[in-house]
Order: sequence, then structure tokens, then C-alpha cells
Amino acid sequence: MTTEKTDRSNLIPFSSRLREGRALAQDVWSIFNAANLPADCINLGQGYMNFAPPKWVTQGAEEALQSVAPNHYSHPKGRIRLREALSNFYSPRFGRKLDVDSEILVTSGQYSVFTAFLEQGDEVIMFEPFFDQYLPSVTFNGGKPVYVPLHPPSKDKAHPSSGDWTIDIKEVRAAITPRTKIIIVNTPHNPVGKVFTRKELEDIAAVAEEFNLLVMSDEVYDCLVFDNNEHVRIANLPGMWDRTVTVGSAGKAFAATGWRVGWLIGPPSILTPTLAATTRIVFCTNSPLQEAAACGLEQAEERKFFETQRDEYAERRAILTNVFDELGMVYSMPEGTYFVLLDISGVQFPEDYPFPPSVLGRGRDFRPCWFIALEVGVSTIPVSEFYCEEHANIGEAYARFAFCKDVDTLKRAADRLKNLKKYLK
Amino acid sequence: MTTEKTDRSNLIPFSSRLREGRALAQDVWSIFNAANLPADCINLGQGYMNFAPPKWVTQGAEEALQSVAPNHYSHPKGRIRLREALSNFYSPRFGRKLDVDSEILVTSGQYSVFTAFLEQGDEVIMFEPFFDQYLPSVTFNGGKPVYVPLHPPSKDKAHPSSGDWTIDIKEVRAAITPRTKIIIVNTPHNPVGKVFTRKELEDIAAVAEEFNLLVMSDEVYDCLVFDNNEHVRIANLPGMWDRTVTVGSAGKAFAATGWRVGWLIGPPSILTPTLAATTRIVFCTNSPLQEAAACGLEQAEERKFFETQRDEYAERRAILTNVFDELGMVYSMPEGTYFVLLDISGVQFPEDYPFPPSVLGRGRDFRPCWFIALEVGVSTIPVSEFYCEEHANIGEAYARFAFCKDVDTLKRAADRLKNLKKYLK
Repeated sequence: MTTEKTDRSNLIPFSSRLREGRALAQDVWSIFNAANLPADCINLGQGYMNFAPPKWVTQGAEEALQSVAPNHYSHPKGRIRLREALSNFYSPRFGRKLDVDSEILVTSGQYSVFTAFLEQGDEVIMFEPFFDQYLPSVTFNGGKPVYVPLHPPSKDKAHPSSGDWTIDIKEVRAAITPRTKIIIVNTPHNPVGKVFTRKELEDIAAVAEEFNLLVMSDEVYDCLVFDNNEHVRIANLPGMWDRTVTVGSAGKAFAATGWRVGWLIGPPSILTPTLAATTRIVFCTNSPLQEAAACGLEQAEERKFFETQRDEYAERRAILTNVFDELGMVYSMPEGTYFVLLDISGVQFPEDYPFPPSVLGRGRDFRPCWFIALEVGVSTIPVSEFYCEEHANIGEAYARFAFCKDVDTLKRAADRLKNLKKYLK
Repeated sequence: MTTEKTDRSNLIPFSSRLREGRALAQDVWSIFNAANLPADCINLGQGYMNFAPPKWVTQGAEEALQSVAPNHYSHPKGRIRLREALSNFYSPRFGRKLDVDSEILVTSGQYSVFTAFLEQGDEVIMFEPFFDQYLPSVTFNGGKPVYVPLHPPSKDKAHPSSGDWTIDIKEVRAAITPRTKIIIVNTPHNPVGKVFTRKELEDIAAVAEEFNLLVMSDEVYDCLVFDNNEHVRIANLPGMWDRTVTVGSAGKAFAATGWRVGWLIGPPSILTPTLAATTRIVFCTNSPLQEAAACGLEQAEERKFFETQRDEYAERRAILTNVFDELGMVYSMPEGTYFVLLDISGVQFPEDYPFPPSVLGRGRDFRPCWFIALEVGVSTIPVSEFYCEEHANIGEAYARFAFCKDVDTLKRAADRLKNLKKYLK
């Protein structure tokens, strides 16, 4: 055994898969983290709530903690109470009686779908901007991401909506190769706030049918659709149930992002392999918070919880959009989610501003976002992070504001944002 | 879009990785599941408790549920309160001050270590019998399992201990190839109950040093070591800190297997890549139950919780081993864990007993285990499941009994087990 002093770091080389999919890069969340920003900076960056889940929901977990079985392993498919609550809640929404044994799977994310279906070199189509976790889910499992852009609203549109971000189905078709296996849909869309139209989803569905693709439809913001927009589920389009897995989340639904309780809904041909994968990756999702999620879904309709919550979020959204209007700044009015994209290309900052190296090394938008955080006191997320490196420039015009914060916080943020005036062209 | 009726199952083929590592086979846990067994069968199969975690521990979660931040995303490294509790608890046990930022990582399993370190075709050495989750952790991440047996006690030993299961270090050396990257150590060992000796770990450490291997040391049963046996941590042997990651579990420590809160302790060179992997697989572990685990670790010493719990488990162990002694059956007295292996090779059952196909298609031990479950009313786990297919015959002599059940249940089980007498040669 050696006794000499040597540098023992990287004694054992890590896997090359960490070099792909930005897995080792400092992620945007750590750069724009409370720890790096002034203590009194208002955090509209990360998408978690600064309020607690409803008491009638957490009560489900409290009761679980005081019993025996709900503190122990759940079935890898999920606790039966939650699967039954999911079936009752979602069956009318999918227009079919969802089978608790084969068509519902409680999980802690979408990762296992890719483990279950990707072969080395298989291609996965995702629309840019994309939720950043998709990328390593694909690359870690041997897949290759293929990007199709959402086209931003025309610059001369004074009051664009998130719906003005559009797909060009010809570009989707052009992206197909013999190795294409999965297409990721995300509606309502993070970070754009877009709710995909029936026509758009029909176009995507036709491509999926034609080329025999699996559709991973991330609909974790399905309870946050504003202004009577219609949330269409691609799984409900003709012929699509058999090839679609839909993702949902208790964290988004019940203001409990730290519970790590989510679910997949789809046909047995997709969920059986996915169950095999998730069982071997995490075995099961934590039991007590599954009980809480069940409690929430059981009572949500009777309490009109999602309607009330949506109206509360619409009010929060208005606090931000009103100040943007006042400033004469352009933003995409979100049809869904708790995010709004603000066009920050007009924000002027000194080129010699003391940006930290972590900010300087990234997309241009990292600079105005950093500048706004330090000078105005409101932190956001630069949108180039939601694009692949080659297309990051499309995102550089935007900052993502999260309005999943209480009204007081948002009002204080709005007051501060008025100070942006002096930095606008 | 096609309108003809076709069989839509397996429309989209699942990944070939599911064909490896038994991922799609019906696992032993589902075969010997309460649902398949008579309703009054006493379950000593699966390793979960039929009692609740201590109230002073669950209280940590209840308080978390009533606050804001502990219901939301935790830092991917884990909540700082838990990391500090882990540092305070484990620093004396590792003989070094554990840094909360770089040497402790809260996770929900060991999977991400393999994601972080395995290259396609890298080999991982594991001792048989092995905890069945290791296998897909290796194969899903492109690795190749290499098996080295623990040798069972000699048949003429009347009262063997789990310590009589031995490794032959020459066999470990013989298993090394240029592709060997990781060696898995599990002490106290599931299912054998063996606590590896200092000498055995020194031998393994020497091989790891010589061939530059990473050691994944699964020590989730470290709080259950009986009879003044010494739990040696391989990370504490000279030169080993830099190449060892040690796994711990709140589920095992606090009778809360369904919380999915575990942790990894090791050097930054191992934990940094593993953090990158786990962040991208599950993002973070659930927050409220991290608070409960912190609460448990903060108070455990003052309450002498682990000493008391160990003594309670020793009492539970004795209920089973006493009846085995009475029956004159041979078992390996476990030095640690809550499992005991009973030699069931002498149990006679009718060859034409109506075994279900799921049992007939597996190792010989599935049959006596099924027979005992149905005729005696106590379910256990056949040990061949903890071996690769080629070596399953070594395990076929044994059934694993879990004694993580309350005293009453174990006494009722012991009474029933007396009926084994009539089936013994």
C-alpha cells in the first residue's frame, strides 16, 4: 500500500456520460441561487412556492406518519390509495376508466421512461426551449437529443401571448430519422407558458403515428391553465393512447415541490417496462407523501381546489404583467404554468459591470439577469439555459419569472421592478 | 391515421437493457407477496417492519409539513439540517470531520454511483449472495456483473455463525480484469447477516488499492450489529477513504423503509460526479422526511436509541433461533442485520404438491419456501434469488427469515414453525 502523498482527486475516472448533457456544468439553478445573491434579493427564479401546501392535504401525511404500513415500502407501482385516487380523478379527464394495476404508475420523475425505452443511439425529439432535466434523461440512457425550436413571437407584436410561440410541423418531420424513438411534448409548457392547441397536438400525433414514436407528454402544469384556454391531452387524440405516457405531479398540484411524488398514466405496453425500470432505479416512491397526495386528489373536486388555485395564480400573474405593461416591456402572456417570459433585450447595463466568471462564461442573458438581480433586487432565470448550446442565442432575449410566490412578495417584486425604467433604452 | 384494429401491445419495443439483470422477470418479492399467499400467513419474507418509526422521529416530519421550505425542493445534496446531523453523527465513526458540502450526499439509493462511474463494459465485482438491486444498478448503466461467492459454512458445523460464510481473496483476485472498476462490499450483509472482519476488509482493500478500484460499501445495517461484534468500515482502513463511498439509510435506522431517505459518505472525487448523476435522475430526495431523519440522528445518541433498538432486535432474533434450535435445524446465527438464513434442505414436501408455475420455474428453494408458507403459515424468501442464475444452486439450501417484526408476531410465527417438525427428515 502506498504511503506517498499524491493528489488523490480523480483517482478513479468518472463516467464519460457525465460529459454529455451538461451534467457536470454548473447549472443555472446554482448560479442564480440565493446563496450567491444579495440576502434581500427576491427570488422569482426557481419554480418553488414560498407558501405551504394546504393543511387538508398535509394532514394525509401526518396521519400516515402515525400509522405503520404507510411508513414502509410502498408497492413499486405506488400505494393503492393513491392509485385509486388518481384513477378517480383522471379517468374522466382521459375519457376512459384508468386501471389502477396497469395504467397508473406512481414515480418520482420521467427518467425511468427513457431507461425503459431507449436503445444506445436512439433519438429523442424535444422542443426548445425545454425543461433542462430532459436532456440528461436522454443522454444518461444512451439516447441522442434532437432539437426542434418553438418560434418566438414576431418582434413587432406589442402584446404577444405564449400561444404566439409556434411549432413548424415541417421542422418536426425534417428531424425524424430511422433512429427517432420518442418525442417529448410539454403542455402547459415550461418556461414559455404555452398551452399547445388541439391542431398542434394533432399534427404531432400524426407524425408520431406515421413514424411509430412514443410520446412522453409532460403535463405537470395541467392544473394551471388560464383564461379558459383548453388543455388538450395528446393521449386523448384518436389512436394516441397506445403510444403516449402522460406525466403528472403532486408537487405542482399541491404546492409541495419537495415531496417528490409524481405519476405516469399510459397503456400497459408503456407502463410495464417503465415499472421494471423504476423499480430497479428507486424501488418505490416515499409512502407518507403518497398518502398526502391521495388525500389531496380525493378532496380537490369537492373543495373546488384547482379552480380556486388557478384564480389565485391568475391574480399573481397580473401583478407581474401589470408592472411589465407599465414599463412598456414586452412579455409573452402565459396561457398556463406559473412562469412568464420577459423580453430583456432592451435592458442596458455597463459592459464593465463586475459579473462573476460563472455568469460571464454563459449566454448573454445571464448578464442582464444577474444585473437585474443585483441592481433591482429580483432574481430570475436566463432562458438560454433551456436551449442547446448551438441555439442558446434564441433564448438570450428572455428572462423567466416564476410567480409561484405569495401576493405580498410579488407586490414587493413589482415595486422593485419599476426601477428597471432607468435601464431601458 | 390507421383505423384498423390491431394488437397494440409492444407497439414500441422496450429497451434491451431490460432483458439484462432480470429486470423483467417476476421478482421474488412479487411471488412471495401477501397478495399471493393465504391471508393469515405471517410475513417474515420482506424486510420491512410491522411497527412504526419512533414518534420523536416522525415529529420532525410533522413539523416540516407545517412549515414552508421543508415542503419544497431540497438542495440536491440534501437539506442542510440533515447533512449537519449526518456530519455530527458520522464524523466520530469515520474518524474525520465530514464536510457537509462535499463529503455527504443525501440520496434515495446507490443507483447513481453506478451512473456516475460506469463506462460501457466496465466490470463490477459483487459477492454472492447479493442484495438483488445491485444487479440492475450495474447492468442498466452499461456495466457487467462479476460474481465472487461467499462460501457457506461446512455442513458438519452444528452451530454455524454468519461469520462462517467466508470469502477467498484469491477468488477476488482471479476475478479482476483490466475492465474491473468497482467492487461492492455489503457489511452487515443482506441476506447472510455476516459482519465482515477487519482482516477480510483489509484483504479487499489491498486488492482495491492494487487495481485502482472504487469500493461501494453498503452499510445500511450498521446500527444492527449484535454480540459485541465490531463493525469495521472499509473507508477507515489506511488509504481507503479516497476510493470508498459508504451507503447509509434512514429506513433501516429508524424503522421507516418507505421514507426513501438514504445517504452517501465519501470523498469529493466520488461524491461530485455522483451528485451530478443523482441531480439529473431524481433531482433531490423528498424534503419532509429528510427533516425527520435529521431529527432522529440529532437525538439518537442522547436517547441511546441505537443501543436499545439493537437489544430489541437481538431479542427478536432469539425468538426465531430458539425454535430452530428446538427443531434441531441448522441456521447461520446472524452477527448483524435483521435476517437469518435457515438451512431448509431437510424439509420434505410432496413432489406433486400444487406449486404455482411462478414457483416451479425457479430455484429448488422456491418450493420448500412456498410449501412452508402454505402448510406452516410463515412466509420467507428463497435465497437462490440472491445469486446469479449459474450459481443459484448454492443458495437453494436456504430460506431467509426477516425478524424486523414485533415480538408478538415473531412468537406466533415461532409457534407455527414448530409444525415443521413433521416435515423434517
